[in-house]
Amino acid sequence: MTTLGILGGGQLGRMLALAAARLGIDVHVYCPDAASPAERVSAGATVATYDDEAALAAFAARVDAVTTEFENVPAATARFLAGRVPVHPSARALEIAQDRVTEKAFLNDIGIGTAPWRAVDTAADLTAAMGAIGPRGILKTRRLGYDGKGQARLDGPRDAADAITAMNGAPAILEGLAAFEREISVIAARGTDGTVRCYDPGENRHADGILRETVVPAAIDAATRDTALDIAGRIVSSLDYVGVIGVEMFAMADGALLVNEIAPRVHNTGHWTLEGCAVSQFEQHVRAVCGLPLGDPARHSDATMTNLIGGDVDTVPALMAEDGAALHLYGKGAARPGRKMGHVTRLTRREADG
Amino acid sequence: MTTLGILGGGQLGRMLALAAARLGIDVHVYCPDAASPAERVSAGATVATYDDEAALAAFAARVDAVTTEFENVPAATARFLAGRVPVHPSARALEIAQDRVTEKAFLNDIGIGTAPWRAVDTAADLTAAMGAIGPRGILKTRRLGYDGKGQARLDGPRDAADAITAMNGAPAILEGLAAFEREISVIAARGTDGTVRCYDPGENRHADGILRETVVPAAIDAATRDTALDIAGRIVSSLDYVGVIGVEMFAMADGALLVNEIAPRVHNTGHWTLEGCAVSQFEQHVRAVCGLPLGDPARHSDATMTNLIGGDVDTVPALMAEDGAALHLYGKGAARPGRKMGHVTRLTRREADG
Repeated sequence: MTTLGILGGGQLGRMLALAAARLGIDVHVYCPDAASPAERVSAGATVATYDDEAALAAFAARVDAVTTEFENVPAATARFLAGRVPVHPSARALEIAQDRVTEKAFLNDIGIGTAPWRAVDTAADLTAAMGAIGPRGILKTRRLGYDGKGQARLDGPRDAADAITAMNGAPAILEGLAAFEREISVIAARGTDGTVRCYDPGENRHADGILRETVVPAAIDAATRDTALDIAGRIVSSLDYVGVIGVEMFAMADGALLVNEIAPRVHNTGHWTLEGCAVSQFEQHVRAVCGLPLGDPARHSDATMTNLIGGDVDTVPALMAEDGAALHLYGKGAARPGRKMGHVTRLTRREADG
Repeated sequence: MTTLGILGGGQLGRMLALAAARLGIDVHVYCPDAASPAERVSAGATVATYDDEAALAAFAARVDAVTTEFENVPAATARFLAGRVPVHPSARALEIAQDRVTEKAFLNDIGIGTAPWRAVDTAADLTAAMGAIGPRGILKTRRLGYDGKGQARLDGPRDAADAITAMNGAPAILEGLAAFEREISVIAARGTDGTVRCYDPGENRHADGILRETVVPAAIDAATRDTALDIAGRIVSSLDYVGVIGVEMFAMADGALLVNEIAPRVHNTGHWTLEGCAVSQFEQHVRAVCGLPLGDPARHSDATMTNLIGGDVDTVPALMAEDGAALHLYGKGAARPGRKMGHVTRLTRREADG
């Protein structure tokens, strides 16, 4: 019997645990919070901080493989565990994805385009950066931002001072605006044997900086789709990555694709695979990090996945009554604004590829 | 937050727990065995016997509703708990389904046909029964038989003595052979509000008395399908049943349907609904027993579900590599002959209804 250790206890860990269960694999969750969403569906749990080496060593002794359910697990934690048990994604992959400057430098180094960017530590850096890449953009903290947090929009020089203040002294990055036609994402997986399998790109709509909806397939032509899968494949191979990764891309009017960000984990834009494919992104990740062969990522249906955020949970009774709606709730308590409480996927018959 | 208590810890409880998790519902498993398949994916567990009233009372105090994952939970256990917390299926439904004589008498009383049958307690009873319904049939213990256990085939009077011996002194029933064209099953659900929803009938193939495969849709005409759903609906309504029930039927050459047996629980022949429908039989059961509205049982695809029994687990590597195969393993230890270790579902595009 295999036991998979998961660092982190949120809804992604919960859905990973459910996918592991489907394969007969036990899960042991390691998370600073007691009674986390993932712990409540797992065979075992350790409640401890990510720098508690005694707890980490005991955890490593109880599991056969370790993975992470969020990208901000300290790389030092992954490195400590990797001396004892296989850990995927690697500390290096986490480090690259945890810092927007490192991430974009990595992408550009392997020939993958991004929006123009500059590292910004000071107000003077910001002035210089705006001079180099234009006065409009988004200033983001290099680390720990997600769902629109730690970001400030710049529409011209007069916004610079407020944007610097919003960073609260943290090292930042100025990202130029990409005038994209649509945002797509590729959920890619790489196995321990180097095999790469990608799900079809989804098209994402955001509201208030938070993913609202993913529609599959994305409205892109076959050549763009192939390019998107190729980009994702180059990223996972260059990282010697094992597991599932989410790669967000901007599709430009001229057909170019710019990578917006990479998330070294299962990804909100891949939740549709639970209903749309025989092997979901969660099972695919479990397979990869447990050293099992990857599964078939083909979708049997088209799909639309909609997040339930904050007060959206008020629509649950209607969703329960809606024909064809596949509902997922994460077992969280209070529905705070911006908090992801669940999602719903609606399948439609797969049309012939364009 | 709702907590659902489940009596029993096998694979059906495990899949119920996973379905509850998807709806954000915690599960507490009550089972005499430690580390059961269901317990390992649940938030809480009680390891105690079904007649331990102190443990049952403590269990009842921790959960908001109770259900069962196998039909042989003692009715007295359900009755004891029902004084403290809602319990579905009811003790009465369990009692009827636990005794083949009571079950068949109930069915005949509400006008539903079965193969001819007689209660058999003694060798003299058996002789009389064979005289009444014919010399060929199956002698079964009235209680506790499943997957072909506790059964003896009779091809004529000379088999009578051995058949009586095989019953080991247990009260029995002689069931006449039904010359059926196919066995089908209806997975029906009834909510606390009396709503009945049925999945499309599947067609079942057995080997060595154990379900091998269910194919959906069954090769029956629309009128037979409607009759099958009507029969299932009459059964759940007559029982004032809440939850999912499996109704096995014989489809005869003349178009008649005879009910073979009813299983007051989620059913192996309904596992295909995990991939084939937005709301699986497991989620449907959780909804019903938690007092939530029933969901849409429509299937979006045709499906074939194949059990992995005993040494079939040796095919797991091939199944993992097979495009379109959705694999489920139950987290059991040794693969003993006849033991259900998992199942695999293959979807095909839904064809127009005949």
